[in-house]
Amino acid sequence: MDYSDLIKKLLAKDTRAAARLITIVENDITAAEKIINSIYSKTGNAFIVGVTGAPGTGKSTFISTLSKMLVQEGKKVGIICVDPSSPLTGGALLGDRIRMKENFSLENVFIRSMANRGQLGGLARATEDVIKILDAYGSDIIIIETVGVGQSEVDIFKSAHTVLVLMVPGYGDEIQTIKAGIMEITDIFVVNKMDLSGADRTVAELIQSIELHMSYKYDENINEDFAKIKQWVPEIVKVNSISGENFDILLNLMRKHRDFLEKTGIIQHYLKTRIKNETLQILNHKLKKKVNELMDLNQEQIDNYINQVIEKVLNPYSMADLLIKMLGID
Amino acid sequence: MDYSDLIKKLLAKDTRAAARLITIVENDITAAEKIINSIYSKTGNAFIVGVTGAPGTGKSTFISTLSKMLVQEGKKVGIICVDPSSPLTGGALLGDRIRMKENFSLENVFIRSMANRGQLGGLARATEDVIKILDAYGSDIIIIETVGVGQSEVDIFKSAHTVLVLMVPGYGDEIQTIKAGIMEITDIFVVNKMDLSGADRTVAELIQSIELHMSYKYDENINEDFAKIKQWVPEIVKVNSISGENFDILLNLMRKHRDFLEKTGIIQHYLKTRIKNETLQILNHKLKKKVNELMDLNQEQIDNYINQVIEKVLNPYSMADLLIKMLGID
Repeated sequence: MDYSDLIKKLLAKDTRAAARLITIVENDITAAEKIINSIYSKTGNAFIVGVTGAPGTGKSTFISTLSKMLVQEGKKVGIICVDPSSPLTGGALLGDRIRMKENFSLENVFIRSMANRGQLGGLARATEDVIKILDAYGSDIIIIETVGVGQSEVDIFKSAHTVLVLMVPGYGDEIQTIKAGIMEITDIFVVNKMDLSGADRTVAELIQSIELHMSYKYDENINEDFAKIKQWVPEIVKVNSISGENFDILLNLMRKHRDFLEKTGIIQHYLKTRIKNETLQILNHKLKKKVNELMDLNQEQIDNYINQVIEKVLNPYSMADLLIKMLGID
Repeated sequence: MDYSDLIKKLLAKDTRAAARLITIVENDITAAEKIINSIYSKTGNAFIVGVTGAPGTGKSTFISTLSKMLVQEGKKVGIICVDPSSPLTGGALLGDRIRMKENFSLENVFIRSMANRGQLGGLARATEDVIKILDAYGSDIIIIETVGVGQSEVDIFKSAHTVLVLMVPGYGDEIQTIKAGIMEITDIFVVNKMDLSGADRTVAELIQSIELHMSYKYDENINEDFAKIKQWVPEIVKVNSISGENFDILLNLMRKHRDFLEKTGIIQHYLKTRIKNETLQILNHKLKKKVNELMDLNQEQIDNYINQVIEKVLNPYSMADLLIKMLGID
């Protein structure tokens, strides 16, 4: 298929073309490849902000308020709500999305929900492609929202320049048990619902956690993908997303972090890591496709192997080795 | 390393050897390969039951009661609690696990928690290996508990012969939005906490959902992996996990489903699908390892490609193609 007309419209900032292309890259990796090939040279301008937090921390309202403030600053905002969670809990979240969407009659905000269809690895890949479309579409800031900080979120956040983690007063106990994982990805902790009692205690607990663990993002020893330099200690700000209180402080902290990334050159390092990760995701998909083709073309042989596993002549590990040989590697 | 002594003890039903081997296969796929190679011929006897449900549906108490009843029937029970969820919500769940563990001084119950360390694909692979160890250890029934029915749970449940999905009264709204995903994996719906008001309404809503959608597991059109024959309509039972009320009905339904699988020959079909999926998971890991080795051995070339992507001469898709060529495929 030819996507050149849609792409031309996208680059001319046509909202419908953006929406249409996003649907295409979500569902079809072959089409995604063609589309990204065409628009890649027009990408690289957007600043990417990741937002996460447990259910109930008020992410939708927070993002709604944050977006409005960014638009007031003259920014064009893209929002991607990614939900890698299960259908069992997914219903309510989708409801939030829809409610959030209704709040947005704003001219310069583009909002899109993505759910986990098909394979997990695929969601991070699709998110990367959607980011590129919103980037080429002219978004200055792209906000990626997820729930929690499991592996799929970490994969998705590999693309984010600044990561905000939302907390609410009264999550003290959990903070104590989870800090390692969270510290690793957080640039700014946002204590939302600051009007609730216990907000200051949550802030104090966060400060304590950070000090206690001497946890810095960009520590060389944490994790290859986030290994930068030990220079940024997670910032903390409490806000009220309904009244907008303290969002000025938050926006300043976000600017401070962006300056930090740019002045230290870490932002360039980010780009390299991101390209590497993205390429690996795509490679992984391409290899899976080749494996599927191999299995389709050699069904009889595969059935024969499976029967040998049932007879315990082979086992899944030795069968995998035989498939690798069939692929022509080794 | 040589694991023959541990394996000998495992096959002699030594609990410590089982625990030790599980830790090894969880953390080291190379060791897992050796161990599974050695024990594979002793596996294939256990019947595998998957249990899932949203947080708050009382899974731990339910499994605790179910296990006791199975033990009273003379069964040896293995329980694997798999938690693919995020660190943000994971804390409390782990607490449940520990509380549940304390309930078990039962001789014939082996309980083990697995969290998602490292890659997501890895959890399903490790779970398969843990199942095999508990199988070789002599478990008659292995219960796998997860939260929700996201992609990682579906991957894990590909091994389960019978899948129980827990509901509680008052989840009506969510049932309406989630049924497609749940129907696909459920053999028996268990409405837990039947003493709460609304239990009968939840049962009625489930019946309605099932009728409305004509959703059958084993429908040829649903999904390749669960595509069997259209014969089993999900059963529904309400229970009280504290008093044990209606567990006799549940056990009968579980037996009925097992008989169904055996009489129709679906259980054999399951085994083939399972072997295929497991082999693909292992193959995927082996390919990832090869890709990592390739990248380590050719760092200069990779950096060169990344720079070309930054200069927009290449993009992640075309770079992935170059890596596939370096791997020797195509």
